[in-house]
Parts: sequence; structure tokens; C-alpha cells
Amino acid sequence: MDLERHLERDLAKLRERRPLIHHITNYVAMNDSANATLAIGASPVMAHAHAELRELVSAASALLINIGTLDDYWIQSMHIAADAASGKIPILLDPVGAGATKLRTSTAMQLLSYEISVVKGNYGEMLSLVGEENAVKGVDSLASSVERVIDEMKDLSLIHETVAVATGETDVISDGKETYLIRNGTPKLGSITASGCMLGSVIASFLAVQKNPLVAAIEGVAAYTIAGELASEERSFRLALLDALVEIDADKVGERINLERC
Amino acid sequence: MDLERHLERDLAKLRERRPLIHHITNYVAMNDSANATLAIGASPVMAHAHAELRELVSAASALLINIGTLDDYWIQSMHIAADAASGKIPILLDPVGAGATKLRTSTAMQLLSYEISVVKGNYGEMLSLVGEENAVKGVDSLASSVERVIDEMKDLSLIHETVAVATGETDVISDGKETYLIRNGTPKLGSITASGCMLGSVIASFLAVQKNPLVAAIEGVAAYTIAGELASEERSFRLALLDALVEIDADKVGERINLERC
Amino acid sequence: MDLERHLERDLAKLRERRPLIHHITNYVAMNDSANATLAIGASPVMAHAHAELRELVSAASALLINIGTLDDYWIQSMHIAADAASGKIPILLDPVGAGATKLRTSTAMQLLSYEISVVKGNYGEMLSLVGEENAVKGVDSLASSVERVIDEMKDLSLIHETVAVATGETDVISDGKETYLIRNGTPKLGSITASGCMLGSVIASFLAVQKNPLVAAIEGVAAYTIAGELASEERSFRLALLDALVEIDADKVGERINLERC
Repeated sequence: MDLERHLERDLAKLRERRPLIHHITNYVAMNDSANATLAIGASPVMAHAHAELRELVSAASALLINIGTLDDYWIQSMHIAADAASGKIPILLDPVGAGATKLRTSTAMQLLSYEISVVKGNYGEMLSLVGEENAVKGVDSLASSVERVIDEMKDLSLIHETVAVATGETDVISDGKETYLIRNGTPKLGSITASGCMLGSVIASFLAVQKNPLVAAIEGVAAYTIAGELASEERSFRLALLDALVEIDADKVGERINLERC
Repeated sequence: MDLERHLERDLAKLRERRPLIHHITNYVAMNDSANATLAIGASPVMAHAHAELRELVSAASALLINIGTLDDYWIQSMHIAADAASGKIPILLDPVGAGATKLRTSTAMQLLSYEISVVKGNYGEMLSLVGEENAVKGVDSLASSVERVIDEMKDLSLIHETVAVATGETDVISDGKETYLIRNGTPKLGSITASGCMLGSVIASFLAVQKNPLVAAIEGVAAYTIAGELASEERSFRLALLDALVEIDADKVGERINLERC
Repeated sequence: MDLERHLERDLAKLRERRPLIHHITNYVAMNDSANATLAIGASPVMAHAHAELRELVSAASALLINIGTLDDYWIQSMHIAADAASGKIPILLDPVGAGATKLRTSTAMQLLSYEISVVKGNYGEMLSLVGEENAVKGVDSLASSVERVIDEMKDLSLIHETVAVATGETDVISDGKETYLIRNGTPKLGSITASGCMLGSVIASFLAVQKNPLVAAIEGVAAYTIAGELASEERSFRLALLDALVEIDADKVGERINLERC
């Protein structure tokens, strides 16, 4: 894959079209995810009222669903939005805390029955979606074997006809037929909250301009983790990360990307 | 109008009295709006429980209602608070996303039936309140003609006996009899989330110390957009904006203000 | 008390074990509190759905309950979580706005019937819990006499078998038998929102690794207020505070601590 060429085109499209990314996400991440979406060039909308979701989703170019602070009303919001988007615009699912509670695992599994373009979580959350127990502590992953993750992500993506993105020291991205590994980023991404949630917003933004969800997922992971690298020497990492997302381009990714097909 | 003289007095009052500004606002903006309120010198309170709203509003010096992430419970909260405040303390209404969904347009119109001192939105949201369709995409404005906006804001303010503030490259502020244009600010204000919401908090703070809502609206727009200018060269614009709001004074506004009566 | 020795051990434990701190907190503070928890070395979880609270609390090492933006559903969440945690893991209660409304005062009093390890609020909020009226304006304290606060905190902690932390220019920490005063910090902590809420997260983190809640409370207040001092010369105080929390250690506290037993 010619990642640099894809990124050059798709970043230009994003910054020209400013596509709407509808977010149903958690309270902790809302502000950071809105800023990350703006930084990469798209326009965030956040709404959850049942009465207006279909109208808003019909104007959006992609839908992000993140279950981080779910409750009954919001679970219904997720289903209404997913139903309205399914088959019309790409959907990204972020199963935050899947594996930590039955409610989260079952909600994530039910949402996987819609046409989900990309499902993205940390190793533990993603393994929970293939039935593994004890992979998650709170919202942190306890899993570590990248080989197992690769195998399971191939299966997961084939079963649900989706692209699986499992984030860890090595990020694993698979549509079941092709699997890519990205070894970029910085431990500092684990030192701020909403780090994974912002990655979701960046991938969802690429989904709005790139029809191949595997390519969009790779673009998103590459742009975000390399922005993290560029920001990692700044004391105020969190803000530097947003600045770096504003300034990310194909050249910067090209210079630093550690992408491997496996 | 002697804007500098007004600002000198009202900023001093704000920083001395620290008036309570009750906020019913959206999840995305809550943290930023609380910080903007503190930065300009007032004290933010955020609460939405029906059982305590009347008690809290009775202690506040101004009420801000922002419909950005509304749902049924919160719409009721907005009505309870507006009813408690109406005729007693000034109310600012921020109709985020009016025009994007029927729920938002109708909620904003219903809230306009209370005694609203200032209603503030982007061009598209404000035109939606006078019945224009297709002026909004998500929470972004599609409108552009400042002449139309001026005409419609005169009408809107007369019909609802309020001050209308329509924000765009040129900010339009009208009470129906007098109309002012402010051409300050920076495109960077559009690059961060909650930017318009923070302006609402700043205007609501001025409403707490300035009886003439037209003057308060002009003070708020001037202080905020010029703080934006002062912050615009910093990489971490979002934080620099809050710093600049702390340091804004009549002199800085006097040097930079581009205010025109039309 | 040998505060430096305690801090050296407990900071090392925190950063090694990364204990889960379950938060039920307010919308304004969620993001800042999550970042403060990560900065001091623990791992934040935020969830409020009744169906999953018992599962999540059973995996946590401490529970923080902050009533800042309470409503009926969330009050029930607080009770479910407190009931699950009571007697098993330490609980910190932050009675934000107690005294400002009947709902807040009564909710805080009801939550005090669980086994609360630490209750922490500003002078006004804490005096409201011993029946004083008119001590609070919005979420700001109107109280000022440190002598009265010391007396009342001794009583409060004895009555409820808890550690009382009353924050102000002088922070008062008492378990009824021993009472300590800390005179550190900076007025800048009052210039940002969620400042007190972040202190709650830091104390709750120490509770997860230090069995004596009086020691944990002193450690938390010392680490947080001294991080504030170290950050106070930075323009972007809010971010510098998080950076300083990451870098706080026993030596830095030892050099600056102003701790007095009374």
C-alpha cells in the first residue's frame, strides 16, 4: 500500500470538505475528541437525544460510537444512530471497557450486528469480543501477546465483516484478508485520558473520505501515533498532540512510519 | 458608545464581585466554559437537577442556557431555570445547532418566549430562528451574507424584545434600534471546540454586572474576540485564549477594537 | 509523622500497581480528574450505569463520589457504588455544593452513612455538613475562620468515623484524634475549574495504597498543593499542574511542605 499517496489525497479531502462526524461518545472524552476531529480537519457533532438522531446522522459522513460511559438511554441512542447509519455511512465502534462488565461486552456485541466499518479497542477489549475472559482490568488491557491478537483479529474481522484495530505497543489492523502492524507512537499516549478515544475520532474522520475502511484505519493509526511521536518531547503533551494533529501531513508520516504487512 | 469606559468599570465589577453565572450547557463545553467564566472574573455553577434548579438560580446573577447536547430531561431543566430567572436575572440563550434538527429549532423558539436578554449563535443558527431553512450543517453555519444577517437580526431582536448576537467573520449585535458590527477575532477560534460556547459564558458574565444587555453583548464579543487575537500566535491556542481572557483589560480592547455602528 | 517516608513508599506503590480508582464524578471535572489520576500514577474508571456498577467497583481499589452535577439517576448510582464499596475498599466523598441546595446537603449527609474514609470539601461545604447555614454561595465557600473549621472538623470526623479534609488557604485535616494543618498551594488553584475535584482524585489514589486514611489525606493534599506551587509560574497553569503531578516526589514535597499538627 502506498500510504503516503493515500494520506496526501485524504488529508486534502478532509481539510477541504470538513465532513461531519457524528459522535456518540463518553463524557470524559467528548471535549478531547471534538478537538481531535477539528485538528485532523473534520467537523464534530455530538448529540444523543432519540428525537433528533436520525436527522443528524442523515447529514453526517461518518458515525462514531464509543461506549465509555454508557447507560440505558445512551445504549438506545447508539442503536438508533447505528440503525440510521448502517449501510449508508461508515460506522466506527469503540468498545471501551468491553470485558470489564457484562453490560459493556453485550452492548459491544449487539452493536457489531450493524454494518460496522471499523471496530477499534485495546488488546484486552478486542479479545473480549472474541470471548476471552479476564483480558481487561477497568478500562486497561491485561493482554500482551501480539501473535494471539493477530490471529484473533483476523477471525473477528471475518466473522463480523469489519476491520479490526487492536491497539497496543504494536497496533494490529486486519480485515481478515490483509493484516498490517504499525509500531509507532509513544508511551506518553498512555499517560493522558481519552487517548484511545481521540484515535477513534481520527479514524472516523478518514472513513468519511476514504472508501476502503482498511486504508482509512491505517491512515488514522499512522497519523495519530506519529502525531504522538512529534508531540512527545513537549511538556504539555496533551496540547502538543492536538497541535501535531493539525500539522500532520503525508511527508511527516512517510519519514516515520513503521508499517509491516504480515 | 464609550466601550473602553464601560469595559473598565464592568471588568472591575466582575473581578470584585465574582457574580455566580448559572450554566445549563452541553457536555462538550462544560469544562471550557467554566474556565472561561473564571478567566473573565465570574464564578460558574453547573447544575441541571430539577429539584435544585430554583434554589441555585435564585442565588445566581445571570443564567446561561446552551442547548448543545439537549435531551428530554435537560430541556425540562432549561424551562425550569428560565422560568425561575425570567424577569429577575438576565438570561443568555445559545441555540447550538438550531436549524440542524426540528428538536433544536423548536426548543430554541420555545425558550425565546421567556425574557431572554441576549440570544447568541452563528449566522446559520440565528437565521434558523427567523424561519430560514438549510442555513446549518451539523453545528456549522452555511450562511454568509452579512447584509441579510443584519436585517434579520434587527427583526429577531424586535420580535422577541432581546439582543441578537450573530457570530461570523463580522459579528452582528442588535437590539432592533441600534446595530453594531465587530470585525475582530481570528480563524483560530474556529479551530477549537466550544469556542462559541465560551463566548456565551463571557457575555453572560458581563450581563451580571451591566444592566444594558446591548452594552454587555458588545463588551463580551469585544473582550473575547480580542483575547483570541492576543492568543493567536501561541501554538497551544486553546490555553493561551484562557490566559488572554484573564489578562484582558479596557486598554487592550481599546487598542484593537474594530467596532462600527450601522 | 514522617511524611516524606510515607510519600516515597506510597508514590512508588502507586506508580507500580496503577490501582483502579472508580469515579462517579461531575461532568465538568471528569476529564481533568481522569488526567490527575493518571498523573499521580493510578488508573481512572468512570461509569454510572446501575447495571454494571457492582462489577466495576469490585475490581477497583478505591471509590470516589463527587456530587457536583448530581441528578436522580446519578444519586442512585452513588448509593449503589457506595453500598458495594462500603467496608471493602476506601471511599472518598466530595460534597460539591453542599449547603447551596437542600438536595446537595441531604445527598451528602445520606452518603456519609456509608463507611467513608475521607470526606473533602471547601470550608463552606464542610461546615454545611455540620448544620451551618449560609456558608456557601453556588459552589464557593463564604466561610473564613480556620479556628471554627478546626473545631467542627474534629466533631464531624468523630461523628461519622471518617477523616475530614476542609480546603481553604489553610487546609485542615482531622480524624478527630489528630488534626493537621497544611499551608501550601497557590491562589492559581482557585483560578481553574475542577481544582478541588482533582484533589479528590489524588487523595483517592493514595487511599488505594495507604491503609491509614489520615496519612493518605495528608499525602494527597501535600502532593497536590505543592504540585500547584511548582506549576504556579507557568502561564498555562492548568497543564503545568498536571505535568507537576507527574513529577512530584517525596523530595519536592519535603523541601516545601508547611505541615503543622494542632
